[in-house]
Amino acid sequence: MTATVHRLAPRSPSLEPMLALVASDMNAVNAVILDRMQSQIPLIPELAGHLIAGGGKRMRPMLTLASARLIGYSGTRHHRLAAAVEFIHTATLLHDDVVDGSDLRRGKRTANIIWGNPASVLVGDFLFSRSFELMVEDGSNKVLKILSNASAVIAEGEVNQLTAARRVDLGEDRYLDIIGAKTAALFAAACRIAAVVAERPEEEEAALDAYGRNLGIAFQLVDDAIDYVSDAGTMGKDAGDDFREGKMTLPVILAYARGGPDERRFWKDAVEGRRSSDDDFAHAVALVRDSRAVDDTLARARHYGQRAIDAIAGFAGGKAKDAMVEAVEFAVARAY
Amino acid sequence: MTATVHRLAPRSPSLEPMLALVASDMNAVNAVILDRMQSQIPLIPELAGHLIAGGGKRMRPMLTLASARLIGYSGTRHHRLAAAVEFIHTATLLHDDVVDGSDLRRGKRTANIIWGNPASVLVGDFLFSRSFELMVEDGSNKVLKILSNASAVIAEGEVNQLTAARRVDLGEDRYLDIIGAKTAALFAAACRIAAVVAERPEEEEAALDAYGRNLGIAFQLVDDAIDYVSDAGTMGKDAGDDFREGKMTLPVILAYARGGPDERRFWKDAVEGRRSSDDDFAHAVALVRDSRAVDDTLARARHYGQRAIDAIAGFAGGKAKDAMVEAVEFAVARAY
Repeated sequence: MTATVHRLAPRSPSLEPMLALVASDMNAVNAVILDRMQSQIPLIPELAGHLIAGGGKRMRPMLTLASARLIGYSGTRHHRLAAAVEFIHTATLLHDDVVDGSDLRRGKRTANIIWGNPASVLVGDFLFSRSFELMVEDGSNKVLKILSNASAVIAEGEVNQLTAARRVDLGEDRYLDIIGAKTAALFAAACRIAAVVAERPEEEEAALDAYGRNLGIAFQLVDDAIDYVSDAGTMGKDAGDDFREGKMTLPVILAYARGGPDERRFWKDAVEGRRSSDDDFAHAVALVRDSRAVDDTLARARHYGQRAIDAIAGFAGGKAKDAMVEAVEFAVARAY
Repeated sequence: MTATVHRLAPRSPSLEPMLALVASDMNAVNAVILDRMQSQIPLIPELAGHLIAGGGKRMRPMLTLASARLIGYSGTRHHRLAAAVEFIHTATLLHDDVVDGSDLRRGKRTANIIWGNPASVLVGDFLFSRSFELMVEDGSNKVLKILSNASAVIAEGEVNQLTAARRVDLGEDRYLDIIGAKTAALFAAACRIAAVVAERPEEEEAALDAYGRNLGIAFQLVDDAIDYVSDAGTMGKDAGDDFREGKMTLPVILAYARGGPDERRFWKDAVEGRRSSDDDFAHAVALVRDSRAVDDTLARARHYGQRAIDAIAGFAGGKAKDAMVEAVEFAVARAY
């Protein structure tokens, strides 16, 4: 009797290996998060919990945990620091939704819609302070330096983005500055601090920083592409949100740069807020498709994804490295 | 020829001795503030500078500097930390004005009115991050612990105040909790860190903390009284702002507690937002006056002011101590 070997088709990249890699550590991180978002003021855990328990992927703390695995760190200091990273991220999201006037995130109503802008601003401030308390408890001045600098860079990036809003002539360089600050800086810091607590040499810190930074840029590029290809049902984000807010993302920057006078006039009108109907959005989707602006945004994402993978080439292979490579492949494949 | 000696009438208490005491140190603090509010993103120094250069008294950094003088600290570490304290305060003010929808502060239009809420939220976040960078540069884990805890307590106090808004049955205890957190915590921390950098014993830290905390409570009580006695021209604050926002401050708490059914109905209507005209405010001013609610709010302020003065009784006398005592007397005398 001859056995017939069935081979599975090559599966598409997944976040599962990384989730499995960090599962037990993530339980410890979640315990810290739940413990430290408490307060005698009931609105604080209520509002923070809405977002923290709201189906986020815990991407940034996951990167801290995976990086620690990659370098064989066997302590527990990174649990508290990963929670601090997630608090910084959550505070940023709360403030972002106020700034953007968003009403939907991860498929749920945003905190600012449910509890109002004042509560979102103040609970964001609380989580931000708590994140610093967690770092101070850890006591590493180097970690504090990395994460306080990342926080300042994020805020600068957000202000940069705000002043760039509705400017059709933004350009790819300034766009990259913005996403490098508002997204990639925290990805980079989340990875780097693992090397710091494990007391690894500077070049390993730098390698993990480069992994996180390039992954963060790729991640944001794909996010910005998704706004022009998906619908709210699948992504938990309203497709067309960026379009309606006049946000200058790379798909728009490329479509504008490649457009003739008519297209440029359309984009200028859209970005400056004079075209935001569903028909306008449908026209925008057609323009970014026909100009290959989404395809090339995704090609840029693959470029940064490859750089992320190459950044950790020097580390020994194994489950952690495989998972970190596949996480990048997953990040750049999300829009297909 | 006989000389006639003219004696001045006893002058009213003033902040001048404290301003003179810290003048040269404050120049150094201002240099740090100006340097560290810079950013490549022009909106950041523009918006931050509006508030920072906008006639604030620098009360909190002044307390750090005066406390350092009191204990004879001769180093310069406190300059950077005093700047960090002022950044925390400035970030809080920016967010407060968004939360309250204020349009006037220190007699000038607020940043949120000029640049919008999003910019105020994000530049506040930037200054808050910068304050942590400054502390991290100093490197004292103890100072970091004190100031990160104060920041979390401030944010908690602000959320507490938000959830207490428009509740006529608030009560004096919860009011004291709120002002203890949102105002007095940073006054206390500003004073305490001077003892930390000077490496003085724990009891001196605690004494300076108590001085700052009690002064902070007295300061806020007088501020809340002023809302019912002064006008915008003299204070740089709109009289009646608290009233129109339905904020439960001690003058209202006392007037409500002492009122008959008609007065209580008026206060409930006012606090819940159904009475906010100029006539209503005039009626409110008459009620707090007739119930001695403002007088007794100021008496409470003098109580905490006396506790502040007693807290530093153990330190050797001299110019610094005299200035710190007179600063308290000035704070509680402001409303007369």
